[in-house]
Amino acid sequence: MTTTSNSTRILSIQSHVAFGYVGGKAAVFPLQCLGYDVDVINTVNFSNHSAYHHRGGSKTTPAELEEIFAAMESNGLLVPGTSMRLLTGYTPNAESLETVGKLARRLREGAEESEGLIYLLDPVLGDSGRLYVSPDCISVYRSMLPLATIITPNWFEVETLTDTPLTSLPALRTALRTLHETYHVPHVVITSIPLSSWLQAALPPTLGPTSSSEHILCLTSSANPSDPSTVHALAVPTIPGYFTGVGDLFSALVLGNYKPPSSLVDSSRFSSTFDHSTPLSVAASSALCTTHLLITQTHNHSMTLPQSEREPTDDEKDAADEGRKRRRMRGRELKIVQGRGAFTWDRPEAKEVEEWRMKGWEGFW
Amino acid sequence: MTTTSNSTRILSIQSHVAFGYVGGKAAVFPLQCLGYDVDVINTVNFSNHSAYHHRGGSKTTPAELEEIFAAMESNGLLVPGTSMRLLTGYTPNAESLETVGKLARRLREGAEESEGLIYLLDPVLGDSGRLYVSPDCISVYRSMLPLATIITPNWFEVETLTDTPLTSLPALRTALRTLHETYHVPHVVITSIPLSSWLQAALPPTLGPTSSSEHILCLTSSANPSDPSTVHALAVPTIPGYFTGVGDLFSALVLGNYKPPSSLVDSSRFSSTFDHSTPLSVAASSALCTTHLLITQTHNHSMTLPQSEREPTDDEKDAADEGRKRRRMRGRELKIVQGRGAFTWDRPEAKEVEEWRMKGWEGFW
Repeated sequence: MTTTSNSTRILSIQSHVAFGYVGGKAAVFPLQCLGYDVDVINTVNFSNHSAYHHRGGSKTTPAELEEIFAAMESNGLLVPGTSMRLLTGYTPNAESLETVGKLARRLREGAEESEGLIYLLDPVLGDSGRLYVSPDCISVYRSMLPLATIITPNWFEVETLTDTPLTSLPALRTALRTLHETYHVPHVVITSIPLSSWLQAALPPTLGPTSSSEHILCLTSSANPSDPSTVHALAVPTIPGYFTGVGDLFSALVLGNYKPPSSLVDSSRFSSTFDHSTPLSVAASSALCTTHLLITQTHNHSMTLPQSEREPTDDEKDAADEGRKRRRMRGRELKIVQGRGAFTWDRPEAKEVEEWRMKGWEGFW
Repeated sequence: MTTTSNSTRILSIQSHVAFGYVGGKAAVFPLQCLGYDVDVINTVNFSNHSAYHHRGGSKTTPAELEEIFAAMESNGLLVPGTSMRLLTGYTPNAESLETVGKLARRLREGAEESEGLIYLLDPVLGDSGRLYVSPDCISVYRSMLPLATIITPNWFEVETLTDTPLTSLPALRTALRTLHETYHVPHVVITSIPLSSWLQAALPPTLGPTSSSEHILCLTSSANPSDPSTVHALAVPTIPGYFTGVGDLFSALVLGNYKPPSSLVDSSRFSSTFDHSTPLSVAASSALCTTHLLITQTHNHSMTLPQSEREPTDDEKDAADEGRKRRRMRGRELKIVQGRGAFTWDRPEAKEVEEWRMKGWEGFW
């Protein structure tokens, strides 16, 4: 599979909300700031994300999605076999997802002999043990995995897709083998891995958190012909509170920073700042750094709001007062626009780059 | 009517296309680059604009629009009476437009005692004598005019809304009086006025085109208590060929540059570069300058394409070969992303600012 695309065109297929920054609203603007022409297909058209009490709008039907794909293809605006990037995220049900999968298959098959398709598939299923989508999406995502160049599941999504409870290092190895070998995914980024005691024990000291504050692990794994894969990891400090759209922003930034087109950035300069890295670990490092900047800015903003707009999460109190949760959510919408200075190719200061560099996990296998 | 809004929030209600830059795709990104948080409601969800041969997707129904507005209001994400900006553009039929009009009325009425609503209404009806929308939109737009702070009709839309064929200076005066006095619109920008012989004769020499190349006139008119209005104008050089989305980009930039919030730009510095100007003429000058930069960049790009992608407009040849027109259209999509450097508050060089400064039309009345 070729994975070089010098095209600056990205087709993004995910959710749209009028207010706030999740799905396309979190992904598209940063990619445009990086210089990509983003074609935007909305899988839903809602007023806001589901954490607010009320929601209006509708889902795009599978027939409407197919009509949009077909019209673009007939007009020569979407050409299987040409160099391009594809980004897919939240799709509300299995029928729509199958339609997206069919398009991805056409683009992948058309690209086999060409400059290449770079497809980042974010298999949005759920988080922390809870599904966001209908359970029949799971098998559809499994059928789509072999089409992807990069996938960005969270911890729970890896468990669900590979049917492997991640309770030990051997289990993590099994899950990665399943993704690379059974599902033929070349590049895997696992976001937000809780630092359980078994993982802390398994982690080489160089990869462990440098401070005692709360951390989660981000891991990249790029398949290669000899070893099963090259694994990089980084313990990332968490910021208190729940922010929506973070995964959508992160996935977009991974795609944007993965082997970036030479017309947008001097690629040699881009990669030379990171030694012993894979293109995936470089992209994920950059995405982690930018995402963390954005969350920090959002958190700092939320701390300036009146107390009533930043009450901590409390399911009981939230249930008693429907406004309590939405005031908090509104104060924690990502500061995508205010933080736009982060969406550039100019690397942040050397110290910051070093801090966010994912490190090789020697002896993982 | 108060027209100061220090809010950096804009609600944009217009069309969405997956590919290309018209409607929201031409308006939202530039406003985000200027620092506005843009809430985006799509009146249609299409694959591309209508100049391509095929089109897929659907129109948002009036019921869906109402549901989205209602959910945002119930969640406290849209609050009549708070300071905000509203931008409305292409809406495909009278029923949807009425729904948008009802929302604008709620926001305007709520804003009467508040910091204010700045509402830019682009009455998208058609161009060059041809309607794009169903004729029953005309009366709905007329009913919405008193809600607007600024309107940005083209020549044909002024004729249609005021029922005044613009064939003389007195006719132009009548049309402006109708908009200001009958429809109570405080600020009018008329884009793309052909420089017919009567207009060339009426134009003070200081406002005439400085070169012999093709020009059109842009005119702003701000109502005031004494004279019927203060009129500014500028003859703008045209660039050969047809580009879509230019009006949508221009209107967005007028709204973004009209009395910009002090949190985004030092307003005193912003306006002090233009003496004897109105806030509207300053905003329109800036919008003209940026729009012209974008069109120039798009034109220059299209000239680098193979000959088959830049065949001149020829209805007969286009009819015989459906690919001929869409190849040309594709090559002329606005370079919104590549030209993003233009969407900043840093004024271009002094010379350029001077070149695009709209000048007072003394003795217009």
